[in-house]
Amino acid sequence: MKISIERATLLKAVGQAQSVVERRNTIPILANVLIEAEGDTVSFRATDLDIEVVDKADAKVDRAGATTVSAVMLHEIVRKLPDGALVSLTDDSAAGRLTVEAGRSTFSLATLPKEDFPVMASSEYTANFSAPAPVLRRLFDKSKFAISTEETRYYLNGVYMHVADGESGKALRCVATDGHRLARIDAALPEGAANMPGVIVPRKTVGELRKLLDDDEAQIAVSVSETKVRFATPLITLTSKVIDGTFPDYSRVIPAGNTKRLEVDAAEFAKAVDRVATVSSERSRAVKLQLDEDRLVLSVNAPDAGAAEEELAVAYGDERLEIGFNAKYLLEIASQVDRENAVFLFNSSGDPTLMREGNDTSAVYVVMPMRV
Amino acid sequence: MKISIERATLLKAVGQAQSVVERRNTIPILANVLIEAEGDTVSFRATDLDIEVVDKADAKVDRAGATTVSAVMLHEIVRKLPDGALVSLTDDSAAGRLTVEAGRSTFSLATLPKEDFPVMASSEYTANFSAPAPVLRRLFDKSKFAISTEETRYYLNGVYMHVADGESGKALRCVATDGHRLARIDAALPEGAANMPGVIVPRKTVGELRKLLDDDEAQIAVSVSETKVRFATPLITLTSKVIDGTFPDYSRVIPAGNTKRLEVDAAEFAKAVDRVATVSSERSRAVKLQLDEDRLVLSVNAPDAGAAEEELAVAYGDERLEIGFNAKYLLEIASQVDRENAVFLFNSSGDPTLMREGNDTSAVYVVMPMRV
Repeated sequence: MKISIERATLLKAVGQAQSVVERRNTIPILANVLIEAEGDTVSFRATDLDIEVVDKADAKVDRAGATTVSAVMLHEIVRKLPDGALVSLTDDSAAGRLTVEAGRSTFSLATLPKEDFPVMASSEYTANFSAPAPVLRRLFDKSKFAISTEETRYYLNGVYMHVADGESGKALRCVATDGHRLARIDAALPEGAANMPGVIVPRKTVGELRKLLDDDEAQIAVSVSETKVRFATPLITLTSKVIDGTFPDYSRVIPAGNTKRLEVDAAEFAKAVDRVATVSSERSRAVKLQLDEDRLVLSVNAPDAGAAEEELAVAYGDERLEIGFNAKYLLEIASQVDRENAVFLFNSSGDPTLMREGNDTSAVYVVMPMRV
Repeated sequence: MKISIERATLLKAVGQAQSVVERRNTIPILANVLIEAEGDTVSFRATDLDIEVVDKADAKVDRAGATTVSAVMLHEIVRKLPDGALVSLTDDSAAGRLTVEAGRSTFSLATLPKEDFPVMASSEYTANFSAPAPVLRRLFDKSKFAISTEETRYYLNGVYMHVADGESGKALRCVATDGHRLARIDAALPEGAANMPGVIVPRKTVGELRKLLDDDEAQIAVSVSETKVRFATPLITLTSKVIDGTFPDYSRVIPAGNTKRLEVDAAEFAKAVDRVATVSSERSRAVKLQLDEDRLVLSVNAPDAGAAEEELAVAYGDERLEIGFNAKYLLEIASQVDRENAVFLFNSSGDPTLMREGNDTSAVYVVMPMRV
């Protein structure tokens, strides 16, 4: 293999591939990126055995071929090369070395045989559809904070992407929950998605996927099977195993009969929660909400350290209510609101509370109360 | 005590005080800041028993008095208050609480009696002088990287500030070394400093001092005794114990007879060292310098991972030389050069190497070679 490639192009392709590579792993080849050159394209493939990323880039291919080399080291070298440099990669398989040359710099990196690289088996996908990047970005960005980190409840360690009955017909829905709070985000069902099996997209895949979604103009090709999910742009393909488990029936958790309605400026509310929570060093300290007509008092009482109280002008017309929440959970759901006021719907101080943005029901959040 | 103070003024004063407080400590009062209000001034005092910082600020004092409260918590609260807020602090010593009020927020923080706060004993200072902030900034900024982190060599865990014979008369000199590299920085001796005893300023004090030195116009009042050093601006006083030990005779380490002269663009050199060091994952890997007439080849050889080589055009007119250095040390000293080319003076591959900025002898660096 012998190729020449622009430093910026190479940096981007290798950067996306190397982020999948686990920093600590006991199988040497998993630290490597598989470089394959043919025609006028070079591809960079990296995997942790659960996720595989393939990045394609334009290059001048003088001699087709393939080899594998440390992903992190190649990325570091390319990052440190001067902007605008032309980089040549030349493989000497007999010596087990890849030569990287740019300007007056020459690097010779140890390679491992391409045959040892574990390429992910291709899958028969049940559904193939296409969605604009901003739609997928919203579905995952607004739900991922609620992903559980408890390894014993592995089936909650991801975002459950599935087809559901939304408020206005069939929807592509993402749900995540850790048992304390839940996010349920809907988008219009893309054509071709109706037969999609529900899949739990693992936390790490959600993080890697995010890098494909920054371009507002991009269309993302999505393919789903019972065991795998694939997201692709013209240059990048991200394939991931899905979590082998059953996502719980979340619909029972979402309260339908909550009638006590609080409307509040989400940003003001989040700042006030953050301030009163300061007096508690424990992360799980409860914030108490006292609701009276058009008046909300937030308070925290930490006997050792002190107490804090703050009043907010709000819209509330129901009977007096006192209810407590984990400050961190309140902050997280309040920070999901980006367009309108936050609307909270309460039942009693012991029941789950629902939150949404204004009257928009395509994104709803549930948070469990705490005794205060 | 009852005072009113601008949020921005309070934030700055508490911010500087709280950074001295150790995050983990077993003596509760050391987590607190002592607030003392009198006349139209409030002072904030914090200590870790080795360093004491006192910040003064203007305030409207309705009732003079003093109390102590958690420094970190007070800082966090003030930080989160809206910009432009007027903050009132009211002490209720019977209840053991300080009330912090701003707008619609009220905080009640646990206090500890002011009598329990360990105020640092005042000292008889042998020398008092004044120096512009940029002069002290240069002395400490250019030397601190060489401070040793080895606790067993506690007398190297700081910057040795003393009076010395410089190239152009008496100088105020800062020296730091960890046995592998050394920095020696001189400034013109300020009036009143001639009788100053040499003191080893601890690493943490150097860090805290840095915050006083950002203002180019500031004059810093410096007081030195055998056991303590004090740096003061009109609003902030930083007092610190000095390290109780003898700084080694560093002058024997600084080579006087090195004649092989290399002149190189410091930024280009640093970038090249950084690039070739990439192939080695170990932080102590040696970089080899091969010098020929007006030509420098940098190389690293890491048998497992690979090798790297880079050539630089330099000014060098002496005999061929091969010498190795720790890549990290080379990078650090090269990054001290900010105005001119770096000038290296070598003797042999086994002898300490000297570096300076152009022909300026008021800042010299020594680095020990490594066998390659």
